[in-house]
Amino acid sequence: MNLITLTTDFGTADAYVAIMKGVIAGVAPKVRVIDVTHEVPPYGIRDAAHVLRCLRPWYPAGTVHVCVVDPGVGTDRRILLARCAGSFFLVPDNGVITFVHRDAPIEALHVVENRQHFLPAVSSTFHGRDIFAPVAARLASGAKPESFGRATDRLELLPEEWNVVLTREGVAGRVIRVDRFGSLITNIHAKDLGPLLHRPQQAKVRVNDASIGPLRATYADVPPGEMLALIGSSGFLEIAVNRGSAAACFGDLETLRIRVLRVGGGA
Amino acid sequence: MNLITLTTDFGTADAYVAIMKGVIAGVAPKVRVIDVTHEVPPYGIRDAAHVLRCLRPWYPAGTVHVCVVDPGVGTDRRILLARCAGSFFLVPDNGVITFVHRDAPIEALHVVENRQHFLPAVSSTFHGRDIFAPVAARLASGAKPESFGRATDRLELLPEEWNVVLTREGVAGRVIRVDRFGSLITNIHAKDLGPLLHRPQQAKVRVNDASIGPLRATYADVPPGEMLALIGSSGFLEIAVNRGSAAACFGDLETLRIRVLRVGGGA
Amino acid sequence: MNLITLTTDFGTADAYVAIMKGVIAGVAPKVRVIDVTHEVPPYGIRDAAHVLRCLRPWYPAGTVHVCVVDPGVGTDRRILLARCAGSFFLVPDNGVITFVHRDAPIEALHVVENRQHFLPAVSSTFHGRDIFAPVAARLASGAKPESFGRATDRLELLPEEWNVVLTREGVAGRVIRVDRFGSLITNIHAKDLGPLLHRPQQAKVRVNDASIGPLRATYADVPPGEMLALIGSSGFLEIAVNRGSAAACFGDLETLRIRVLRVGGGA
Repeated sequence: MNLITLTTDFGTADAYVAIMKGVIAGVAPKVRVIDVTHEVPPYGIRDAAHVLRCLRPWYPAGTVHVCVVDPGVGTDRRILLARCAGSFFLVPDNGVITFVHRDAPIEALHVVENRQHFLPAVSSTFHGRDIFAPVAARLASGAKPESFGRATDRLELLPEEWNVVLTREGVAGRVIRVDRFGSLITNIHAKDLGPLLHRPQQAKVRVNDASIGPLRATYADVPPGEMLALIGSSGFLEIAVNRGSAAACFGDLETLRIRVLRVGGGA
Repeated sequence: MNLITLTTDFGTADAYVAIMKGVIAGVAPKVRVIDVTHEVPPYGIRDAAHVLRCLRPWYPAGTVHVCVVDPGVGTDRRILLARCAGSFFLVPDNGVITFVHRDAPIEALHVVENRQHFLPAVSSTFHGRDIFAPVAARLASGAKPESFGRATDRLELLPEEWNVVLTREGVAGRVIRVDRFGSLITNIHAKDLGPLLHRPQQAKVRVNDASIGPLRATYADVPPGEMLALIGSSGFLEIAVNRGSAAACFGDLETLRIRVLRVGGGA
Repeated sequence: MNLITLTTDFGTADAYVAIMKGVIAGVAPKVRVIDVTHEVPPYGIRDAAHVLRCLRPWYPAGTVHVCVVDPGVGTDRRILLARCAGSFFLVPDNGVITFVHRDAPIEALHVVENRQHFLPAVSSTFHGRDIFAPVAARLASGAKPESFGRATDRLELLPEEWNVVLTREGVAGRVIRVDRFGSLITNIHAKDLGPLLHRPQQAKVRVNDASIGPLRATYADVPPGEMLALIGSSGFLEIAVNRGSAAACFGDLETLRIRVLRVGGGA
C-alpha cells in the first residue's frame, strides 16, 4: 500500500485539507497520508515546484505526491499525472512539475480526465476534494495511470529565467524561496558548481555586488550573526546568517543576483 | 476501526494536541487521528461551528469528530456526544454543534459524564486530554454512546442572528469566517438562494451598499485583483478577490451586511 | 510497533519535516509518526526542553521522542539517545533533555555514532534527515539502544538559573514559555509549592511587584479580561488572562520574577 503526500496553499486554519483526507479515507481507508506543507504562499507555483523537487528523492517508489497549488481551478487548465523516477505526481498543469522534471525527467504523463474516478459532483472551486483526492486514493490503491486518461507529451513549464546561467567566471542564479530560518534558497545546485564544489576556498559568493566569502560547510563556520553561503541540505546554494535571518538583510528578494565566482574571476 | 478528527483552538506551537494524541494512542493504538485545524481563533465558537459543518459530509459514517474550543473548561458546562447523519460529535455544550445540527439534525444526544471513561485525574484546565481524548478513543473503538452518560434533549445553540434572513427581494446574511485566501465565507447557503441559484446572471450581490456583480462560477471569471461573489466549495456564498484578499478591502467584517437580490429587487 | 514523535524548529512551510517522514517510511513503513510541534522558536532549546517534559507522561512506554532543535548541527556536538521512564529521547546534546531528566532521571544514555544506522551520505546541515530519522525508525522497529553507540554519562544541561528558588517566604521562578493563548508558563511546578498547593487561598502570587491574587482553579474563576494565576494542565504555575493574553500585559518576559508567597510572607 503506497503513501500519499499533500502539498497545497490551503493553510491549516480551514477544513480544506481535512476534507481531502476524509475523501481519501472513504476511498482507501488504509492508505497513509503525509502532509508536506499547506503553507505554500497563495498561488505560489514556484515555491511548490521547489518543495516537490526537494521531497522526491526521500520517498519510497510508488509514493503519490499530490500538489494542489492551483490558481486556475475552474478554468480549462488540465490536471496531469506524471511518473518520475518511480514516483507519481498529481498536479495542475501550471508549471509546478518543472523542477522535478529537470531533476528526474518524466517517464510517463497522462491527462486526468476520466470522470468515473472523480466525485459524482465536481465543483468549479475545489478540485482538491472532487478530483485530486479520489484519484490519488485510487492510484495509491493500485489503479494504473492509464486508467485516469490519455497519454500526452505537452505540459506547462516555468519560464527559462528560473534556470541558472553558466558564465566564464562561474555561475549566476536567483533566490527561489525563503525558508523558516530566513535563509535564501537559490536555484544554483551543487552540480552547477563543477570543480569549484571541491575547492570551496577558491569560490567567492556574491549577492548583487556584496561579497559573502567562500563556500562554507555549516552554519557554525561563521560567528553568530554573520552571513555565509553554503550548499544546503537539498543540494542548493543557500545564503544564510548563523542563528539569524538572511532575508531580513535584503530588500526585494526577487531581483537579487546571486553569483559563485572562481577567485580571480569577474567582480 | 473508526477515524477521529480533531478541531481545536490550541495552536500548533505547544504540546497540547500531541498530548491528546498520546492519550488516544494509549487507549486505542490502532485508531487513526486526523487534524482538522488547531488554528480556530482562541475561543472562536462560531468559527469552529462552521468548520465542523463543512467537514461532516466528507467523512465515512462512524467517524468521531472531536471539537475542543472550550472557553468554559472547568466551569459546570456539560460535554455532549451527538450523533448526526451517522457520525459522532464530541463537543462542549457551548453552541459549537449549531450549524451541524441545522444541516443534519441530531439523532441522539448524550451527556458525557461517566468518569470511568475519563483519565483517573481530571484537571480543571485541560479536558481535551482528560475527558475528550479517552472518550473519543473508546467511542472509535466501538463503545456505545449510552455508555458515556444519560440521554438529554437540551443543548446550547448560537443566537438567531446567525441565521440568514429571507426577504421579498432575496436573502440577507453575514460573514461567518475569513479563509486563508482572505475570502469572506458567509452564512448564506446555495439552497437559501432558491431559483436564483440556477439563474446566476439575475442575481446581484451586495456588500453593504456596494455591488459585487452577479454570481460567478469560479475565481477566474473576473480579472486578477477584482472582487466577485460565488458559491464556495462547501455550498456557502463567498465574497472573494481573484488572486487577492477580499478581507483586506473592508474594515469591520462582523457588521458587514451581505445580500443576494433578484435583478429588479430592492437596492 | 512503537510510536515516533517529532519536535523541531523547522516550521511547516518547507519540506524538511516531510523529508524526515519519507526517510522513516522507507526504513519502517508501519511505524506511526506524530507531530508534536515544528514551531519551536528557531534555536529555542529551552522551549523544546519544556515541550518534551510536558509530553513524556502521556505517551505509551517505548515511544521514541525525537527532538531536532539543533543550532550546533555540523559541529562536533554529539547526538544522544536517552531512556527515561521507559521512553526514548533522541536529541542533540545541547541541554534539550534537561527538564525531562529532572522529572524522570535518565536510566540509560548512549552516544549515537554508529554510522551503519545513518543514511549513506551524511550532510553537515540536516542531521534530522540523515541521522535522527533512520535511527528513530530502527529504534521504533526494535533495535537495541546499545547498537547505536557506546554508553556515556556525560551530557549538557541548561544553566541552574532555570531552576526554581525556594525561600523562607515561598518560591521564586521565571517564565519559560508563552503558549498560544498568551499565558505565561513558569518553571514553578505544583510540587514546588508544598503545603501551599492545598491551601490556595493562603498563597499570593506576584509578578515582579504586582499582586495577581491567590491560586485559582480555572480561567473562569475571574471575569473575562482579568489576570489570574493557576496550576496549568502540565503541573506548572501559569499566569493567564481569562479570555485574553497575559503576555500582552508585560514587556520583557525573560526578566520577569514570578513568586508564590504565603500570606504574611515577604513583599
